[in-house]
Amino acid sequence: MRYELHYWPGIQGRGEYVRLALEDAGAEYIEVDSSKSGSEPDFHPSFAPPYLKAGKLVIGQTANILLYLGPRLGLAPKTEAGRLWVHQLQLTLADWLTEAHDTHHPIGSGLYYEEQKREAKRRSQDFLANRLPKFLGYFNAAMKPGDKITYAHLSLFQVIEGLRYAFPRTMKKLERRHGTVAAVHKRVAARPRLAQYLASGRRIPFNQDDVFRHYPELEP
Amino acid sequence: MRYELHYWPGIQGRGEYVRLALEDAGAEYIEVDSSKSGSEPDFHPSFAPPYLKAGKLVIGQTANILLYLGPRLGLAPKTEAGRLWVHQLQLTLADWLTEAHDTHHPIGSGLYYEEQKREAKRRSQDFLANRLPKFLGYFNAAMKPGDKITYAHLSLFQVIEGLRYAFPRTMKKLERRHGTVAAVHKRVAARPRLAQYLASGRRIPFNQDDVFRHYPELEP
Repeated sequence: MRYELHYWPGIQGRGEYVRLALEDAGAEYIEVDSSKSGSEPDFHPSFAPPYLKAGKLVIGQTANILLYLGPRLGLAPKTEAGRLWVHQLQLTLADWLTEAHDTHHPIGSGLYYEEQKREAKRRSQDFLANRLPKFLGYFNAAMKPGDKITYAHLSLFQVIEGLRYAFPRTMKKLERRHGTVAAVHKRVAARPRLAQYLASGRRIPFNQDDVFRHYPELEP
Repeated sequence: MRYELHYWPGIQGRGEYVRLALEDAGAEYIEVDSSKSGSEPDFHPSFAPPYLKAGKLVIGQTANILLYLGPRLGLAPKTEAGRLWVHQLQLTLADWLTEAHDTHHPIGSGLYYEEQKREAKRRSQDFLANRLPKFLGYFNAAMKPGDKITYAHLSLFQVIEGLRYAFPRTMKKLERRHGTVAAVHKRVAARPRLAQYLASGRRIPFNQDDVFRHYPELEP
């Protein structure tokens, strides 16, 4: 099966969670620019990219794509209970990602950062003081260091990478108290195919048009 | 199977999406106050309520609970493609719900509305002008009037109910242009078991501690 990942070019964004799973599994896939006409299907349309074409299937919503891919790529448990648990973790990561995005866009995703900078400062303050520790604490308790790696582990790696880019000083402090999260990040980064991908030109660097952004003024 | 729905008392919140599915199917369930000690499981903990106990399973994240319940309650298609599509719709409804919540809490869910009223006005303006029409347009095109009812249809009903409560004048205008959405809402409301539930004391009224809130100043 050759998968087609339809997404915006030039950013990691939500597409990166799908890329990490495909790359880790050594799956065959191509990227299609979702902003080009003809990319969007009439059947089962998506509210927003990414979406995946897999044979006749068109699947939208990042967590849903991973729900589909997980068992096929060897990145999900075999039991229903296990799959529901991994999906639950993934949906919580999606919530975390939305909150991380909203630190720089608390008013509207269609407005520039500069138009909502004052609000972004307040939202970031709340995120760093309350939400970030809560999410880190949750995943630190919910995941076990020796667990078999699933797509949720790959996604946790990506969220940690992004948060290190966006809020480097806060993360440095907080990660010390969240050893399991740091250990999962390290294990994922060391997976051979993933390490190769991360060092390759295919891995888009973090940038200021992306979900994770580094504005020093948002990290006091 | 007698299900246990663990959630905060006194609000519809995200628990309501699960309640609607259980009520529509006439399933046996009890509610457990998730703020009471002993409610939260050590195994497969949730970041936040609601979570469902189903025999030995504990399932968190609203959309994940519905993914599990859907086929068991006759509220999901039989094919994998169909189930992925309904789940995709549900995840998009979850995104919509988060944005509706953030109209009155754009800075922090731990702060009072009064502490973020200025920002709430700006965020609501953007939501009403851009996001609400986009979501309505999407569901109006994605759903078909005659489709078999699934848990996503029940959830769409609930989102429309909530938005009518929060932004009555805007919804009145916008619904005229989104006939399929209005038709799905009507069909769901007319389902016998659901109509009975909605008229019963078990249906918690909309209120100002909930996800959907009516602040007239947010709807100019």
